[in-house]
Amino acid sequence: MEFLVKVEVTLKKTVADPQGQAVYSALRDMGFEGTREVRVGKLIEVRVEGEDREHARSLVDEMCRRLLANPVIEDYRLEVGVDG
Amino acid sequence: MEFLVKVEVTLKKTVADPQGQAVYSALRDMGFEGTREVRVGKLIEVRVEGEDREHARSLVDEMCRRLLANPVIEDYRLEVGVDG
Repeated sequence: MEFLVKVEVTLKKTVADPQGQAVYSALRDMGFEGTREVRVGKLIEVRVEGEDREHARSLVDEMCRRLLANPVIEDYRLEVGVDG
Repeated sequence: MEFLVKVEVTLKKTVADPQGQAVYSALRDMGFEGTREVRVGKLIEVRVEGEDREHARSLVDEMCRRLLANPVIEDYRLEVGVDG
């Protein structure tokens, strides 16, 4: 069965985010004065074959630990959906 | 009132995604043979001051149209949360 797993990879709160800072400054300069903070992360969509949702989740969790996320500076969060 | 708005910026389905393709190949090479497709997008978290949820949404929607997303090659999706 095929599952679409969304992975949100975000920088840990304690890690500086120069890209987010640049977007923040640009938004403020454009007149969006209500902007308080911007953080930029990655959204990785993985379509994967698995026996069931839990299997798909554990496969993608392992992908995150081994390749998709850097545990020193990043957190990640998975969301498993069913794919048609 | 402060809102945390999550913006998912993804490449349109018709646009080639070399970064996703590279991750796909790496995962297959690592033995994740059930991997069918990988797409890499951006997750932008914007903390913004707004009168209410709709106001916050419309502000960030305007940010997307003017700066955060490239409508020629990207789609975006907003999710408004309340921030403590």
